[in-house]
Amino acid sequence: MIARRMSQLDSSGIRKVFDLAQKMQNPVNLSIGQPDFDVPEEIKTEAIKAIQNGINKYTVTQGIPELRDGLIKRLQKERGVNAEGIMITSGVSGALTLAFMVLVNPDDEVLIPDPAFVSYKHLANFCGGKPVFVDTYPDFQLTAARIQPHITKKTRILIINSPANPTGVLCATRELKEIAELARKHNLLIISDEIYHDYDYNHAFDSIGRYYEKTLILDGFSKSFAVTGWRMGYAAGPASIISEMIKLQQYTFVCAPSPAQYAVARSLDIDLDNYISSYKKKRDLMYDGLKDTYHLIKPGGAFYFFPQVPWGTDEKFVSAAIQKNLLIIPGSVFSERQTHFRISYAASEETLKRGIDILNSLSRQ
Amino acid sequence: MIARRMSQLDSSGIRKVFDLAQKMQNPVNLSIGQPDFDVPEEIKTEAIKAIQNGINKYTVTQGIPELRDGLIKRLQKERGVNAEGIMITSGVSGALTLAFMVLVNPDDEVLIPDPAFVSYKHLANFCGGKPVFVDTYPDFQLTAARIQPHITKKTRILIINSPANPTGVLCATRELKEIAELARKHNLLIISDEIYHDYDYNHAFDSIGRYYEKTLILDGFSKSFAVTGWRMGYAAGPASIISEMIKLQQYTFVCAPSPAQYAVARSLDIDLDNYISSYKKKRDLMYDGLKDTYHLIKPGGAFYFFPQVPWGTDEKFVSAAIQKNLLIIPGSVFSERQTHFRISYAASEETLKRGIDILNSLSRQ
Repeated sequence: MIARRMSQLDSSGIRKVFDLAQKMQNPVNLSIGQPDFDVPEEIKTEAIKAIQNGINKYTVTQGIPELRDGLIKRLQKERGVNAEGIMITSGVSGALTLAFMVLVNPDDEVLIPDPAFVSYKHLANFCGGKPVFVDTYPDFQLTAARIQPHITKKTRILIINSPANPTGVLCATRELKEIAELARKHNLLIISDEIYHDYDYNHAFDSIGRYYEKTLILDGFSKSFAVTGWRMGYAAGPASIISEMIKLQQYTFVCAPSPAQYAVARSLDIDLDNYISSYKKKRDLMYDGLKDTYHLIKPGGAFYFFPQVPWGTDEKFVSAAIQKNLLIIPGSVFSERQTHFRISYAASEETLKRGIDILNSLSRQ
Repeated sequence: MIARRMSQLDSSGIRKVFDLAQKMQNPVNLSIGQPDFDVPEEIKTEAIKAIQNGINKYTVTQGIPELRDGLIKRLQKERGVNAEGIMITSGVSGALTLAFMVLVNPDDEVLIPDPAFVSYKHLANFCGGKPVFVDTYPDFQLTAARIQPHITKKTRILIINSPANPTGVLCATRELKEIAELARKHNLLIISDEIYHDYDYNHAFDSIGRYYEKTLILDGFSKSFAVTGWRMGYAAGPASIISEMIKLQQYTFVCAPSPAQYAVARSLDIDLDNYISSYKKKRDLMYDGLKDTYHLIKPGGAFYFFPQVPWGTDEKFVSAAIQKNLLIIPGSVFSERQTHFRISYAASEETLKRGIDILNSLSRQ
């Protein structure tokens, strides 16, 4: 009874992580892909007001005008991006789903950095496209020089994710300009996943949308506002693409949750500096604790490290960590290689210190 | 740049309605597909508590256990349905999207009552399937005898929606049993959209899931709890189908909004009798006001009538209504025929009375 397209959707990576996690009771958990703080109080207050005031019904499928207008202005002011169109989506995953469905024809090639967030590869496959990996080891820098050899006549889309999951690495302005030039030459569409843009410890974040008009920016509030369960994202870019995504959203997601739309619209100016500073401190703590024992990059953003395993394969190393009650994620969940592992430092300092101790004890087999 | 599959998604029907609505200022609006009351206070309170207590993060993709367990028990107790599997979805539209993607192969035939809710046809087309319409005019009863002639070797799925949008008509137990027998003979999967099951004025609602195990029940809280903007639905049925839908949800919707999951889980036992009684009263008001001037069925559920147009085509008649500041929906949005129109009585009694007056003034050209 199951449609053939489902055989193209591989969930073994995610299942692997769930299976590992379920075996453990109260682990030292450095696997979490969301902030360890709760939603700032003022944002909660706005959501509560919305619910009380009857903002509980459908919105127009593209999202409420005050949120769309606010985001368009901020993209202009903060990222220098002039987006033709914008829509509110159910998280960045919702936006990715719509974008891939709207854009990827069977046999289209989609350039994806390796390592990268799991969904890009699986959604490309699900739409019948072909994921083509741009290896970015060992420094995880996405550059025009690394992309260029993979471009063929079938290449349609390039994915950028800066700051990146699972590496935390940012794409510097110089690289973005070169990538924009390359994309223009080959008429590629760029999908720029900017969900971690607020986690930018050296004020180095820049959007490719500033340099290339055929960019679809995907972003949201899950990580910045710690509202992963509110399903709040957006897509901004060429009007011809956004209008098709809206058409598809009408029949699928219908609209993003209405109280959350309202709350976020009223909270765009909130100051996140304290949260980001505390995450910079976590990053430094983790880096200083591991730099002498592991090969690892000190990244400028997000809340991940992607160190090399000191021995064995990623799965063997992660199994050994689990034996010691530490939950981390094998690199092959994000990569075609099996040589690294992901640490999330979205956890308390106490948890980070315990994690550092266990990792240091594991650095030699 | 747009993928070919998008050409199979026709949004002209919905666009037509939006275009009509946008031309009008403060219309007598009998077009609304959601209740005219706000969320019951006790449900709001639970959602607010959830937000305050930090229930703002991702849940597992299949939804929180207390909600799934509560729903499984209620399906058993109230509908006599023993569902093998269940998952929480982003509204019934989210569940429909996952179901069609998981189940419909190119060229599969999907049996859809005519008239019916717009999405069935468009999602079937989007997945490359072929919608096959079972005409149910003039009484809108879906019966085995009406379905049978349309079954071919390619038929895979039958859609049931009782109480139905846009007609309000319910499928009686005798018909459900005969349909179940027919489905069993041809090994069809039944998708039973039960979103209007609480709007059941003669206590006649029955679920086909009671009589046929290959039934995927889709339901939710948008209509019962007036939370269309909370995006809360569920799918229950064969474990092999639910597990594939969960796999796809992980990469697309991720999870239904978490505060809403929590609030609904705590509110399953809420008493809706007053709301339903008031809607029965609205139905009777509308029926009594129109029965002498229109050919219309008095339906047992939902909050719609689907009368025949007294002259001209559906679009001409609706245009004339709009000239008189009444917004109703042309039947062809829901049907292959152009002979009827949809009235929603999800409106205040005052609005209903004004609507009745305008409709009566329009009954002769």
